[in-house]
Amino acid sequence: MHSMGLPDLSGELAWERIAELATVTDEPPGLTRTFLSPALERSKRLVGEWMREAGLEVFEDRIGNVIGRRACADADAPVVACGSHLDTVRNAGRFDGALGVVAAISAAAALRETTLPYHLEILGFSDEEGVRFQTTYLGSRFYAGEESVAESPTVAQALKRHFPNFFQPPPRRLAAYVEAHIEQGPVLENAGVGLGVVTSIAGQTRLRVELRGVAGHAGTVPMNMRRDALAGAAECIIRIENLARDSTDTVATVGCLDLESPASNVIPGFASFTIDIRNPRDESRWDFVDLITSEVGGLAGGRQLDAEFFTLLDAPATACDAAMTGLLAEIVLEQQSVCPQLASGAGHDAAALGPAARVAMLFVRCRGGVSHHPEEYASQEDLAAAVSVLTDFLRKFRP
Amino acid sequence: MHSMGLPDLSGELAWERIAELATVTDEPPGLTRTFLSPALERSKRLVGEWMREAGLEVFEDRIGNVIGRRACADADAPVVACGSHLDTVRNAGRFDGALGVVAAISAAAALRETTLPYHLEILGFSDEEGVRFQTTYLGSRFYAGEESVAESPTVAQALKRHFPNFFQPPPRRLAAYVEAHIEQGPVLENAGVGLGVVTSIAGQTRLRVELRGVAGHAGTVPMNMRRDALAGAAECIIRIENLARDSTDTVATVGCLDLESPASNVIPGFASFTIDIRNPRDESRWDFVDLITSEVGGLAGGRQLDAEFFTLLDAPATACDAAMTGLLAEIVLEQQSVCPQLASGAGHDAAALGPAARVAMLFVRCRGGVSHHPEEYASQEDLAAAVSVLTDFLRKFRP
Repeated sequence: MHSMGLPDLSGELAWERIAELATVTDEPPGLTRTFLSPALERSKRLVGEWMREAGLEVFEDRIGNVIGRRACADADAPVVACGSHLDTVRNAGRFDGALGVVAAISAAAALRETTLPYHLEILGFSDEEGVRFQTTYLGSRFYAGEESVAESPTVAQALKRHFPNFFQPPPRRLAAYVEAHIEQGPVLENAGVGLGVVTSIAGQTRLRVELRGVAGHAGTVPMNMRRDALAGAAECIIRIENLARDSTDTVATVGCLDLESPASNVIPGFASFTIDIRNPRDESRWDFVDLITSEVGGLAGGRQLDAEFFTLLDAPATACDAAMTGLLAEIVLEQQSVCPQLASGAGHDAAALGPAARVAMLFVRCRGGVSHHPEEYASQEDLAAAVSVLTDFLRKFRP
Repeated sequence: MHSMGLPDLSGELAWERIAELATVTDEPPGLTRTFLSPALERSKRLVGEWMREAGLEVFEDRIGNVIGRRACADADAPVVACGSHLDTVRNAGRFDGALGVVAAISAAAALRETTLPYHLEILGFSDEEGVRFQTTYLGSRFYAGEESVAESPTVAQALKRHFPNFFQPPPRRLAAYVEAHIEQGPVLENAGVGLGVVTSIAGQTRLRVELRGVAGHAGTVPMNMRRDALAGAAECIIRIENLARDSTDTVATVGCLDLESPASNVIPGFASFTIDIRNPRDESRWDFVDLITSEVGGLAGGRQLDAEFFTLLDAPATACDAAMTGLLAEIVLEQQSVCPQLASGAGHDAAALGPAARVAMLFVRCRGGVSHHPEEYASQEDLAAAVSVLTDFLRKFRP
């Protein structure tokens, strides 16, 4: 057992805490904690205890974020925040979110005796995944000052039951936010290193495409007289894949495909599918969306299918702060021979904080790139390295 | 109103009867009549009356087929049968099945005073579509002598409630069966003629293919590291379409496609799809199935997807009798300048009777090739022509 009060150099304490958080679930034996669920509230009490042990004052804000605060002697100093989220997807892995919260607490504990030129706030956000209300980043958007997220009728009603007496922080200047998170992709593992830094968090466009042709009897309509909506969708999917492969930075995914009244002996008359498009630069993403729309429209026209496009989401990219990222990379290079610089294809709390503060992110290798799954795994060694880098960063950073 | 006793040269009576049958439904306002349903039983009483008006003796056999019989003076003469089915798909059109039954009754009525060298049996089969028990051709297979179809537990139980006292026909020799049916495809319409003859009824193979890759985060897995099961399925669908287009006689259709836990932001890890393959020649169909299996396997392998194949159905082709088809075509050519010879991609009662008798089929043009849909349509003029051809055929045919 790790002895309290000493820096957690082996990552043993942080590792045990991640394991303990993994038992706090609404749906045993899997791990599921959603916004304001009983398990989420239990996880916050646990995290609050760890924060107090690290010498932090613990508060809860109106959206249910847990905040461990260490005030600077200079009351006018800015705030530097570090953390991640406590909620999970359904049947989640144990590292997504929890790793960043636990590592931040360990870093704060290691800096307990160190004077910092800023107010330190360690964060356990109450909602990043958006499972409960299909609205992502409730916790971090609220923390960033977007208070309207607490006022939608469903969210406000849920909050009223939970936090009749919340903490209203004093007016303060949020200067910077740094977050450690598993990569959720295979790049660090392939590079053979435990850590990397994030240059930007990709913007996302999500489209739905509907193709309408003519249903028909699978036995009686000759091949050259068909207007097969599924064959049209298949051609679009391959084209989208090829265009993304040929691009520099874009990833594009068709994740859902639905047919109308499908039957094995009926030529599909209607197909709809989603396209998820991400790129670290907004301009590039918009160009790609235009290209896809034009190509899909052309393919549909060539098959006499009617095509309709619906934009479901259009979220801008977030650039990470160059100075913060440079400092992170410098520290990482003290531990490993190279420091990969990655664009994050996944969204993160850091993206929600982008409009309010300078942000930076440290990525931690995860096995096989697997996330959102019980087999999600990061090693204790990489976790220890992440704690060490965060600690050094918070010690050296001048907002 | 058509006056009874005269041949229905205008097709008016047959047209009215098809309209009347279209009102006999289990699910108004649409047309749905399934095996042994109340509407099917009502339709049989109606058809039985029309058969008696045409001078036929009416029976019902153990599987619920309605049979209008006119015995030949020679008790040892063979049986020649003519008809189609009375059941429908859900929300059906009014011509599929009904046209063939009604036209056969009109032909029998027109031949009332004509001596025939065979026992004539006009058929309204109780099940061709297979909607109720997912087993097609219950009626025609039983009539063809495959009595075991009445003995599956679910069918036997349903029959017991309906027909405690059925008619058991005397031992007799079924020589030939002729059926008029809407084409359910666009070939006759495109050729600008109302009638055509069928050379064979295609055999069918139905496969299910399962592709397993690796699910992943739509934002974090680079394009070149994906094992996307849907993109793999899309490539297979396009390949299948191209191979069928390049073949002489094969049609192939992917009618169903399913993903496991689809989400717009998740790379699909598993996809399954069906392939319906039809060809008038069994050898050609089997060759195509082998080709498809090999090509799909190769495409899957190239993407590091595991592919599994399941054969859901393998039904042989039925060749129509050359002499019967020749006689039909000769009579058709008295009415129109050309007589298209078509392979039927759809299955028909004639296929179920193939093992027991010589069979032939007359196809009737239907608008847009549409069938199994309320908009299914054949003209009164084409219906009258079909009645006339069937009448002449039954007059001239020597079994």
